[in-house]
Amino acid sequence: MKNMDLKPMLKPESVAIIGASRDPDKVGHVILQNYINGGYSGRIYAVNKSADEIMGIKSYSSVLDIKDKIDLAVISIPAQFVPEALEECGKAKVRTVVVVSGGFAEVGNNGLQEQLVKIAEKYNMPTLGPNCLGVMDPRSRVDTLFLPTYKLSRPSIGGVSFVCQSGAVGSTVLDMISGEGFGLSKFISYGNAAHIDEVDILRYLMGDKETKVIIMYIEGIKRGKEFIEIARKITKVKPVIVLKAGRTAAGQAAAHSHTAALAGNYESHEAIFRQYGFTIAEDLSDLLNYAKILSSEPRPKGGRLAIVTNGGGTGVLAADATGLSGYLQLAELSGKSRAALQKTMPPLVNLRVPLDLAGDADEKRYGDAMSILSTDETIDMFLVIVLFQTPGADSRVAAKLISFKEKLDKPMIVLSIGTDYTRMHKVMMESAGLPVYDSPNAAIRSLVELLKHSIYLNRK
Amino acid sequence: MKNMDLKPMLKPESVAIIGASRDPDKVGHVILQNYINGGYSGRIYAVNKSADEIMGIKSYSSVLDIKDKIDLAVISIPAQFVPEALEECGKAKVRTVVVVSGGFAEVGNNGLQEQLVKIAEKYNMPTLGPNCLGVMDPRSRVDTLFLPTYKLSRPSIGGVSFVCQSGAVGSTVLDMISGEGFGLSKFISYGNAAHIDEVDILRYLMGDKETKVIIMYIEGIKRGKEFIEIARKITKVKPVIVLKAGRTAAGQAAAHSHTAALAGNYESHEAIFRQYGFTIAEDLSDLLNYAKILSSEPRPKGGRLAIVTNGGGTGVLAADATGLSGYLQLAELSGKSRAALQKTMPPLVNLRVPLDLAGDADEKRYGDAMSILSTDETIDMFLVIVLFQTPGADSRVAAKLISFKEKLDKPMIVLSIGTDYTRMHKVMMESAGLPVYDSPNAAIRSLVELLKHSIYLNRK
Repeated sequence: MKNMDLKPMLKPESVAIIGASRDPDKVGHVILQNYINGGYSGRIYAVNKSADEIMGIKSYSSVLDIKDKIDLAVISIPAQFVPEALEECGKAKVRTVVVVSGGFAEVGNNGLQEQLVKIAEKYNMPTLGPNCLGVMDPRSRVDTLFLPTYKLSRPSIGGVSFVCQSGAVGSTVLDMISGEGFGLSKFISYGNAAHIDEVDILRYLMGDKETKVIIMYIEGIKRGKEFIEIARKITKVKPVIVLKAGRTAAGQAAAHSHTAALAGNYESHEAIFRQYGFTIAEDLSDLLNYAKILSSEPRPKGGRLAIVTNGGGTGVLAADATGLSGYLQLAELSGKSRAALQKTMPPLVNLRVPLDLAGDADEKRYGDAMSILSTDETIDMFLVIVLFQTPGADSRVAAKLISFKEKLDKPMIVLSIGTDYTRMHKVMMESAGLPVYDSPNAAIRSLVELLKHSIYLNRK
Repeated sequence: MKNMDLKPMLKPESVAIIGASRDPDKVGHVILQNYINGGYSGRIYAVNKSADEIMGIKSYSSVLDIKDKIDLAVISIPAQFVPEALEECGKAKVRTVVVVSGGFAEVGNNGLQEQLVKIAEKYNMPTLGPNCLGVMDPRSRVDTLFLPTYKLSRPSIGGVSFVCQSGAVGSTVLDMISGEGFGLSKFISYGNAAHIDEVDILRYLMGDKETKVIIMYIEGIKRGKEFIEIARKITKVKPVIVLKAGRTAAGQAAAHSHTAALAGNYESHEAIFRQYGFTIAEDLSDLLNYAKILSSEPRPKGGRLAIVTNGGGTGVLAADATGLSGYLQLAELSGKSRAALQKTMPPLVNLRVPLDLAGDADEKRYGDAMSILSTDETIDMFLVIVLFQTPGADSRVAAKLISFKEKLDKPMIVLSIGTDYTRMHKVMMESAGLPVYDSPNAAIRSLVELLKHSIYLNRK
């Protein structure tokens, strides 16, 4: 049986950095430094043929010299030396390997890459890469990224796992996740997919209890049949959001020279994704927007949307996006709701959706409106727009919405657009599990994807 | 001749705040405070029947009691008292008026609104609103917004004027502009458009030398014939970017209860916008993305795009967006460029577009590549992707790109995605006139709009 257990890679008790370096400009330096300073509590070993000590720890000339059992070896040395190092890992019974180094199939060195695969198979040793960023797990503090933390903020602990073929896309999306409230479960950047590929990773993450939602950036699928087999199962267990690059001839050619991926026909990939209930992203920001809602919100019963707003125009834009969505409709409030609103709302407020609470709405008015609407059976989901620029909107409104969210068994998201003062409240609400969006279209499209996922699950 | 000269409103030498208040929760308090603390250097008068002094300045019981000549009166009192105050403004020969107060046609009080129009016409006194935020001009420091600066950051001085029917949309977009490098020329929020409407505002801004680009949010167009007349002329003088709300039945109904606008048929509006070379935005973020490129970039000769990147996957996504755009194509580099690149680039670099400089690209590699490509006649425009998460990308790369930008006579924009470290460099580059985008799709769509505008201008 082929061993593709990624647990020793993601929860290693011991790590060897092969190519650890004293030179701050070297990748092997940054990786070792991130382990030493990053709070990793396992055992760390440096491997470098030409040094006895690096950053205060002993350096070994080969992984074979280390007496300890190694769960994860990270290889960051020039491509031509990688096969030898990998062979030594096999002999030393290293349990898993990440090959960070580039210079393989992505630049035409197919033979060199095949050597790696043969060695990995010979020792039945799960090997990630080459030409990748590797892995990160904020719980175990494993972090093979060769990017310093001042450049790339690390995400907090959460339930979203991110599978990414590209290192560059991986690093930017990770940096963006660090600014979101939902947090990261695992990051796995698999580069050329020589040994471990997307099928192995999805199989592992399907059974990973810490992973609630998976987001993926892929350039090519290597094993179509096996991919379909896992695709059929996985979305019934947890949502998978996919951004597939190589949608055009131009993109496919670029993908091939990037990770040697054969991007294939996009339409056929898209058909598979749709058939098996994947959520399809069209831009990097979609990955985050959809992960946010799918990781926090309950399944909606339908698409009848209540929009509550303190900004009329923003309510109009959200109503337009609803009308154009093809999936959602504005809720028609019940007579009971309208009568109750009539009593509590000021005379200027129109008793319809979008419910415009007016520019002076404060936490009392939001609270009154949400009290009434949260029991209205004509409503399936809520979009609450809070423009924090207005006089009445402040932290008390955010706190009030959080308290409603905690009791509500329907999806509820917030739309707040702005800079510093708004971002402060976004962090506050997202930390409490209330997703916040920054554009009407992004908010509505995310609600649509939540509904589509629910429809897919109901179809069975 | 109808007087719609907005200069006294935007460059007033004297301002009267009618409804100035001691109560910090009152709109009239915040407006007066923003004038007193905001650096406005003209003469300020407070008008309030029941106070002798507010925030250290004398308060008048009527604008008629002020001996000075008033360029701008800002009215912020309950709706039913507005006609009387406006009548007094007319008698006092106030040159222009902004009516911030709501409670007119947007809630069915059409009669009250008609009274305002009659008074404004009787005195031939340009009157903005009611139900609006009013105006802002960072050069003259006129600022009738009733939103405190800690909630809504004020934009810096620039060349983009923003015409906005909705106060809420206006406040959020202004806040977002404060985070952009391009800066604001004028902000005009006109609410119910009772007297001054979008036609008057466009006529004024067409001749305003400080305005290079106009962005608009509109819910309805009142005077179709006059709008077409100005539309026909204005885009030949400066670009106009428009976001039209009320695209759907749901949005149209919401727009009507918001600013009493009759949103009309979206398709017919869109046809007019297209025919006369308006740039059409589909979301709030488009307004900023398109303003950024149209206010800084020269007209491209064609759609042959060079993409230079330090992130392979991000290059693939940009290539996909190029292929899907319908307007742009990846440039085929000249033989001369390829030969020169072969000499200077490391062996791993593929000599094609997207030109992937690899994850360790530093300012020298960017500089070498741009030196070669900037004289290549097969290229019409540049998208330079800099992922600042990577080891070689830092302020020196940003400085190098700025220096190329200064010499280049072709459009050049940057794509950088990330949080703090990236945002720092975005500010650096945008301050130097180099637009920075945060998603591949936004960057490519903005280049498309730049090209479409150029095609429109060439058609004449």
